[in-house]
Amino acid sequence: MLAVTILGSNSAVPAHNRHPTAQVVQSNGQKFLVDCGEGTLLRMMHFKIKPLKIDHIFISHLHGDHYFGLPGMLTTMGLNQRSKDLHIYSPKYLEEIIELQLKVANATLPYKIHFHTIEDEGVIAETKDIIIESFKVKHRIECWGFLFREKKNPRKIDESQIMGSQIPVTFYEKLQAGEDFISSSGNIIANHLLTVTGDIPKTYAYCADTVYFEPIADKVMNADLLYHESTYLHELEEKAVSRFHSTAKHAAMIARKANAKKLLLGHFSSMYDVLDDFQSEAEEIFENTECAKEGVCYIV
Amino acid sequence: MLAVTILGSNSAVPAHNRHPTAQVVQSNGQKFLVDCGEGTLLRMMHFKIKPLKIDHIFISHLHGDHYFGLPGMLTTMGLNQRSKDLHIYSPKYLEEIIELQLKVANATLPYKIHFHTIEDEGVIAETKDIIIESFKVKHRIECWGFLFREKKNPRKIDESQIMGSQIPVTFYEKLQAGEDFISSSGNIIANHLLTVTGDIPKTYAYCADTVYFEPIADKVMNADLLYHESTYLHELEEKAVSRFHSTAKHAAMIARKANAKKLLLGHFSSMYDVLDDFQSEAEEIFENTECAKEGVCYIV
Repeated sequence: MLAVTILGSNSAVPAHNRHPTAQVVQSNGQKFLVDCGEGTLLRMMHFKIKPLKIDHIFISHLHGDHYFGLPGMLTTMGLNQRSKDLHIYSPKYLEEIIELQLKVANATLPYKIHFHTIEDEGVIAETKDIIIESFKVKHRIECWGFLFREKKNPRKIDESQIMGSQIPVTFYEKLQAGEDFISSSGNIIANHLLTVTGDIPKTYAYCADTVYFEPIADKVMNADLLYHESTYLHELEEKAVSRFHSTAKHAAMIARKANAKKLLLGHFSSMYDVLDDFQSEAEEIFENTECAKEGVCYIV
Repeated sequence: MLAVTILGSNSAVPAHNRHPTAQVVQSNGQKFLVDCGEGTLLRMMHFKIKPLKIDHIFISHLHGDHYFGLPGMLTTMGLNQRSKDLHIYSPKYLEEIIELQLKVANATLPYKIHFHTIEDEGVIAETKDIIIESFKVKHRIECWGFLFREKKNPRKIDESQIMGSQIPVTFYEKLQAGEDFISSSGNIIANHLLTVTGDIPKTYAYCADTVYFEPIADKVMNADLLYHESTYLHELEEKAVSRFHSTAKHAAMIARKANAKKLLLGHFSSMYDVLDDFQSEAEEIFENTECAKEGVCYIV
């Protein structure tokens, strides 16, 4: 199961009860933090997401509304006695900033941070269930999109077949991995008699802050869920381009080119209170569009 | 009129709907920000305090819960087209941190920041109405308290005398400054016939993060309002001391020694939800005690 919870959907500053960018991507119990605007810790507390569950943080770029919440997140994890290693993926200089802040506070964290500087497109992280790739977007400063690709999902236990089969629950994980069952008396029950094919692996693409940039479509081709920024409506296209941001129409054009299944709009300018026009503008080009709502967990 | 609005009253991390340290001191229309924990911008928005009204920011020390909201505050002031100079008073290294963050964001603010490094006790800032002094407190890292001393308050217009006196409203400010009124025909009306003595100048002392440290009492002697941290109750004195923090009893002892008029407790540990015991513990030693409540404006 791949899902993303939106913690912040506004650009730049908080407004209209929307907050700076942050998202939690979830894959079979593992949680990944994507960007970390100021106040992300509070948003996580508000939505009952535990920071200590996060082992990987991805920062798209070093504009404050995408990372000013990170220092507080890291020190809070320390105060909460985190001991597990933490991995942070970002453009360079983030390590320098964090290390300077820790130094002047005379603070030592009780856990190790591994800073991974993103230098090129491709796989940047991999866990048991998921592969995360970086791809280039085009913003005023170096900025990266992130693609979360599920690996092959485990097979699913066929409840109707397994009932009364005497197979211990402790063997279920092996069944999900495709193994046959061999009883103590040597009888073999073939895996396909006990399980069915797992869910089709899904992909979630986070396009960070970017001007309309067609190469993105290739990178996120066939994404099941595509998050693309739409800071402005298209009537402000010129402003959007000058600030290296996109419009709702731009986002929809990328979604259509990429043959995405669904488009999630976000990073709205504080100029806008009501967002209906974003959705209708995008829907004209790409029908399955939604405006990101904070606190909602979107199943990919 | 001197007053302080509490924006954050918790230590370290947000909890129990309390937030990291930040206060707005107000003196005759001028506003001063004291510390700026993460989310201070949101707190100001919540309490309808405009960041652009602030020209002076005082940072007691470089632990994150006292300044992680500053970078977002500064960039937001920029996005809001601030053009007035801003003055920041803090221990050294803050400038280095902020400049690094601006550099990596390729950002230029549309206003000038004057960084004032606090190096010793004494006057660090002065405006028309108020003098701000730094004084040493004792924490795990370099940390400063701040004393806000009103200068002589302007004389007050005596409404009963001025009625029907034909004195134009535009002259009121001069009356408040002590000038006599001279009519166009040369008649002199002595100032004391039109005004009464202004309010007695008040002082507000902010004691930042500190272990129990008696020299503070001398520095804040006779303060009308004394804010002193009380991270713990006295049953955890050992913990407080080891972490260079105070207990409610410690705070009250300083207030009594300093002959303060009133004590405001704050910087409560997240361990505590209900704060009644802080007040009662302090009251045993210093009666006029209150636990700081966020959003409340305390008139000094």
